[in-house]
Amino acid sequence: MKLQPIGKRVVLKQVIAEETTKSGIVLTGNAKEKPQEAEIVAVGSVEADIKVGDKVFYKKYSGTEVKLDDEEYLIVDEEDILAVIK
Amino acid sequence: MKLQPIGKRVVLKQVIAEETTKSGIVLTGNAKEKPQEAEIVAVGSVEADIKVGDKVFYKKYSGTEVKLDDEEYLIVDEEDILAVIK
Amino acid sequence: MKLQPIGKRVVLKQVIAEETTKSGIVLTGNAKEKPQEAEIVAVGSVEADIKVGDKVFYKKYSGTEVKLDDEEYLIVDEEDILAVIK
Amino acid sequence: MKLQPIGKRVVLKQVIAEETTKSGIVLTGNAKEKPQEAEIVAVGSVEADIKVGDKVFYKKYSGTEVKLDDEEYLIVDEEDILAVIK
Amino acid sequence: MKLQPIGKRVVLKQVIAEETTKSGIVLTGNAKEKPQEAEIVAVGSVEADIKVGDKVFYKKYSGTEVKLDDEEYLIVDEEDILAVIK
Amino acid sequence: MKLQPIGKRVVLKQVIAEETTKSGIVLTGNAKEKPQEAEIVAVGSVEADIKVGDKVFYKKYSGTEVKLDDEEYLIVDEEDILAVIK
Amino acid sequence: MKLQPIGKRVVLKQVIAEETTKSGIVLTGNAKEKPQEAEIVAVGSVEADIKVGDKVFYKKYSGTEVKLDDEEYLIVDEEDILAVIK
Repeated sequence: MKLQPIGKRVVLKQVIAEETTKSGIVLTGNAKEKPQEAEIVAVGSVEADIKVGDKVFYKKYSGTEVKLDDEEYLIVDEEDILAVIK
Repeated sequence: MKLQPIGKRVVLKQVIAEETTKSGIVLTGNAKEKPQEAEIVAVGSVEADIKVGDKVFYKKYSGTEVKLDDEEYLIVDEEDILAVIK
Repeated sequence: MKLQPIGKRVVLKQVIAEETTKSGIVLTGNAKEKPQEAEIVAVGSVEADIKVGDKVFYKKYSGTEVKLDDEEYLIVDEEDILAVIK
Repeated sequence: MKLQPIGKRVVLKQVIAEETTKSGIVLTGNAKEKPQEAEIVAVGSVEADIKVGDKVFYKKYSGTEVKLDDEEYLIVDEEDILAVIK
Repeated sequence: MKLQPIGKRVVLKQVIAEETTKSGIVLTGNAKEKPQEAEIVAVGSVEADIKVGDKVFYKKYSGTEVKLDDEEYLIVDEEDILAVIK
Repeated sequence: MKLQPIGKRVVLKQVIAEETTKSGIVLTGNAKEKPQEAEIVAVGSVEADIKVGDKVFYKKYSGTEVKLDDEEYLIVDEEDILAVIK
Repeated sequence: MKLQPIGKRVVLKQVIAEETTKSGIVLTGNAKEKPQEAEIVAVGSVEADIKVGDKVFYKKYSGTEVKLDDEEYLIVDEEDILAVIK
């Protein structure tokens, strides 16, 4: 099963890590907030230069969390993607 | 009797399940919130690539709940449909 | 006396019933909320495919209640009509 | 003295009555809310089919109350006029 | 010194009176609210049919109060002028 | 060092005075609110007829206060400039 | 690793200083608020005359804070950049 975003939307999978990752990304241990870093797993009819597999930062409190096949995803509007991590 | 949505609207029927369904979809047991997964039962003059029978995720707190022939439906704007589950 | 809606508006008369009607429509007995089902009694310069006599669902908390000849009506914007019951 | 509305505005004079009027209009005796029925006493550059002398219903809480020559008037935007009583 | 409004703005001087004026205008004695009647003392690049010297009613809570040469003025947007008193 | 406003913005320096100034401008002694009178010290790509050196009134609570070389400035949108004092 | 802003966005690195800097910029010691002065470290498809290395002031409470390689950045919309410090 997979998610096909409708319109200018993107499906994200949050990057979860308890410590500094190999890539050097430090994630806050604040239990109240999830990190705003994620990987793109599906794209709708977006216009921006983003594609599946990109690591991105997205706008705080944006999007809708959904659950599929026991996995949690976040569906956000394209305009809530702030930057690609290269 | 059936519902004919006016304008860019869609009529949804929520998928209710107490356990993991055959398709592998796990629904949260949180009694306060209904799952945001639903099946499209009628479409108005929509532009998106969605049709009756599609399983979709929709935006939280969107739409209006109505009751017809003892069944509950949710009428939402097309733009509140986030993704199709394929 | 009759009401002539100004602009893209519609005059509604709410359907009140204590039990399942002949048409099979079940109305909630919740005393705090009126049912969101109504019959169109007058239309302004609307664009949607709705006409006098149609049974419709409308958006919650929309419109303005008025009283004329001892009868209560609800005047709502055309865009607050969600679906026609056929 | 008279009021000349600026732009798409209308000057209204509220209809006050303690009992059922000759025209059969019943006004609520609720002291907290003024009836939303009024007569048009002046029109600005409006586009709708309304004229001085029309009895109308207007949107709740709309407009600005003013006092001129010891009389109270309500100046509302044309778009807050809901329906003409014919 | 004088005020030259920028854009579609108007400078107003409120009419203060303790009793019925010669012109018959009665002002409310409510100490909490200033009357919404004023005289236009300067106009910016407005489009409406208003000019310096006009007595007008303006929208409640609109505009910004300023003080110049010990006099208080109210600078409001043209669209907050409701009606001219003729 | 100087500030170059980006877009339709203006940099203001507030006029501070404890008493009536020579020009006759009386400033309120209210410690909670700064006067809304200021001098323009830099302009971005504005369209209005305002220039460096103009004394202006601006909209309450508008703009962002910044500090540069120990001096406080207020950067406001052009549309928040209400009137020029001539 | 570096950040590539999506759309009309800019990545900022806040200037932190405990005392008056050589350039004469005084930063407030208020622990609750971070200074609104920053250096541009990456630009998206912006239209304004700003480039990497510019010192800028930005709108209060704007943008989203992110962490990358143990460094904190602020991603803001181009329209929230108020002025360049020259």
